[in-house]
Amino acid sequence: VSGIEKELRSFLDAHAVLPGSSAAYLSDFTEERGLGGHADAVVLPRSAEETAQVVAWCYERDVPIVPRGGGTGFAGGAVPFGGVVLSLERMTAVRSFDPLVWRIEVEAGMRTADLRRIVRESGLFFPPDPGAAEQSHVGGNIATNAGGPHAFKYGVTGAWVLGLEAVLAPGQLVRVGGPMRKDVAGYDLKSLLIGSEGTLGVVTAAWLRLLPAPEVFLPVVAFYGGVTAGAAALQRVVGTGLAVAALEYLDGGALAAAGGSFPEGVPDGAAFLVIAEADGSRAEAERLREEVVDALAEGSLAVRTPADAAALWRWRDGVSLAVTAQRGGKVSEDVVVPFERIAEGIDGTLEIGRRHGLEACSWGHAGDGNLHSTFLVTPGDAEELERCERAVDDLFALALRLGGSISGEHGVGAVKRAHVDAYLPPAVRAVQGQIKRLFDPKNLFNPGKKL
Amino acid sequence: VSGIEKELRSFLDAHAVLPGSSAAYLSDFTEERGLGGHADAVVLPRSAEETAQVVAWCYERDVPIVPRGGGTGFAGGAVPFGGVVLSLERMTAVRSFDPLVWRIEVEAGMRTADLRRIVRESGLFFPPDPGAAEQSHVGGNIATNAGGPHAFKYGVTGAWVLGLEAVLAPGQLVRVGGPMRKDVAGYDLKSLLIGSEGTLGVVTAAWLRLLPAPEVFLPVVAFYGGVTAGAAALQRVVGTGLAVAALEYLDGGALAAAGGSFPEGVPDGAAFLVIAEADGSRAEAERLREEVVDALAEGSLAVRTPADAAALWRWRDGVSLAVTAQRGGKVSEDVVVPFERIAEGIDGTLEIGRRHGLEACSWGHAGDGNLHSTFLVTPGDAEELERCERAVDDLFALALRLGGSISGEHGVGAVKRAHVDAYLPPAVRAVQGQIKRLFDPKNLFNPGKKL
Repeated sequence: VSGIEKELRSFLDAHAVLPGSSAAYLSDFTEERGLGGHADAVVLPRSAEETAQVVAWCYERDVPIVPRGGGTGFAGGAVPFGGVVLSLERMTAVRSFDPLVWRIEVEAGMRTADLRRIVRESGLFFPPDPGAAEQSHVGGNIATNAGGPHAFKYGVTGAWVLGLEAVLAPGQLVRVGGPMRKDVAGYDLKSLLIGSEGTLGVVTAAWLRLLPAPEVFLPVVAFYGGVTAGAAALQRVVGTGLAVAALEYLDGGALAAAGGSFPEGVPDGAAFLVIAEADGSRAEAERLREEVVDALAEGSLAVRTPADAAALWRWRDGVSLAVTAQRGGKVSEDVVVPFERIAEGIDGTLEIGRRHGLEACSWGHAGDGNLHSTFLVTPGDAEELERCERAVDDLFALALRLGGSISGEHGVGAVKRAHVDAYLPPAVRAVQGQIKRLFDPKNLFNPGKKL
Repeated sequence: VSGIEKELRSFLDAHAVLPGSSAAYLSDFTEERGLGGHADAVVLPRSAEETAQVVAWCYERDVPIVPRGGGTGFAGGAVPFGGVVLSLERMTAVRSFDPLVWRIEVEAGMRTADLRRIVRESGLFFPPDPGAAEQSHVGGNIATNAGGPHAFKYGVTGAWVLGLEAVLAPGQLVRVGGPMRKDVAGYDLKSLLIGSEGTLGVVTAAWLRLLPAPEVFLPVVAFYGGVTAGAAALQRVVGTGLAVAALEYLDGGALAAAGGSFPEGVPDGAAFLVIAEADGSRAEAERLREEVVDALAEGSLAVRTPADAAALWRWRDGVSLAVTAQRGGKVSEDVVVPFERIAEGIDGTLEIGRRHGLEACSWGHAGDGNLHSTFLVTPGDAEELERCERAVDDLFALALRLGGSISGEHGVGAVKRAHVDAYLPPAVRAVQGQIKRLFDPKNLFNPGKKL
């Protein structure tokens, strides 16, 4: 039992403190690329006030604070390098729900899928649908500004946040924004906290904006022989002005890994998959779906309109796991490129893999130019992991050369820190560092992450 | 000729420098409440590089820099209190336009209405439609995070900004974001600059996201005998889940002021107007419009479906001017309340007017809970203006009591500075001040504004 654990037990309920060795709190989805951490204690606060109390205790004693959501991150943002892991998992309450005005206030530890189900029962819709939504938390989604397939039409998590409650240094509970839809009475601290990966403070609750639920979700899937035909189809959908809700792709490698469980099977020769979805009223979505079918037809091997949208998206959510299953591990990034450069991003990922002797593939949110560029690894093969790191260097350089970014939705975490320097111009980097010091002068909020 | 003007002429083109006494650059729409300023010189740069050069010159010599867009602000954000007015009006270029991927890059001095027209010619749509769009600039819209009627469905200006080019202290040209749709590779400096009213730097250009243009815009207007019936109708539209594009209101006073020019006239006894709009494909918008007509019918004096949407919105854009015309001046704020409190906000505005012996009215973006609460003044009546100031104190207290904000889209500018202290909790206020000092250690960017 560490001294920190013992001291925390002196003022917190016994059940609120776990040993620092609690394995479930020392890694996230980067475990599959070999990342793991260590902690002095794990705290599970039950309220914002208790969270503030723990932060104040840590801040006074120079103890690092590592906020943790569902642990589904791909950037090591939740991996602790000592200090106290602050898991929000017990803070799952709905503080208020006003379906008649399309608004809900929830605590940060609510699972994303639970939120979506709760509002759906009142005919409403929380659009963000990042992967692993059954496990990820609303707070974690906010901390990474998570995206997902439907971000193409509806925007990322931050677009749905009206206000935040958060604990800032040295342990102060504050509120920015609130139950209103517009507010310019100060600088936008809310957006500064969104996507800050727990490095500026701890989000404890959020006011969220909702929408009336679309009546139907009507997906279209189309298969192609390769990247050229598939990317041309993607460009046709956007170029003809079809306002689809989602526009996804899988390249040949991703399709080979995940295709075995694809509903109704994959046609012979398919090496590229496009998923587009029309939503809205039944009449409107059916009309749009027809236009999408037309736009996707040219050069395709098959175009289908699956009846069971939920089954399709469950399959889509499992792609990452299916790719991991190929070799037991993977290094997966989430670069962004301008939409018109997406074919170059997909081909470039494969070329980088070849250059470093790595099996590569990609899939992702085509409409947003957001590629999950991935290199397969065998767990424990240090030399292969080392080659992966060099491949990732090349991948980020490619994203920058194409005019994009090194992260669209996973964040920087621990794994991309070194690359942020190359990505951000010096003047911008300097401001970023000053903002971090302003919020966290002792560098105790999730140290070693983001920048 | 001031020394500053003379020195600026030494390195800038003669046509780029105007005397500080140039009246057109010393006020904005707050002139109607008596606000005016003074300047040492006015500079009209032709490029981002020239803007950076001017900022560097000013920053080195401790000369205040007051960025200026179209001068249509209602908060005095563009009113100079000495120093150099930096008007972006000559920077109107389209740097790149990629209609096939729904994206444009424009300089900050482009007029908002010009932007909307340019993209419309390619079948695209820039949704933000703040008032005075024929005069306001894209850069000014970004600096205030301007809203407008269609922000209810489409969000405010910031929701459409992919990236910014800006000049930061001490004269450095930087870019945050860019031609990509997602980016979490750093703290969200872009959102920090949006709505910062020129107090953190000068926006010189922006990458903007666009949408395929809706096929039709189908407005519905409904008249009621008073606030109770009108507000109930607003609640029915939202409560029955009708995803309208805009949801506006005018109270009795605003309707009396502007009703004379209302297309097809105002029915007898009308003391509250609701405008809702359905957009999208013709079939979809017609279906939604029918549901809106039903939702608005109960308790109404008349419900109409005007054929000429553009004429209706031109009239709506003139409401502010029509209210001013009543007495020659007005003090108009833009408080926000949670949507379910809107009747209290409207009635409360009138009650505050009565208390201070002022003629009051309100209109605004009902769906966003954003009220333009207004007190009429006679220009030059200092005693009346003084009573207005006290009424505004009460108005802001009301907005806070209802759980809202003191500004939804106009910003803080010079006129709400004193109120920001009461609105923001001390911890948040402290961070705001630190952010200002971080970006502008010499307090030269639009001093006396925002905070």
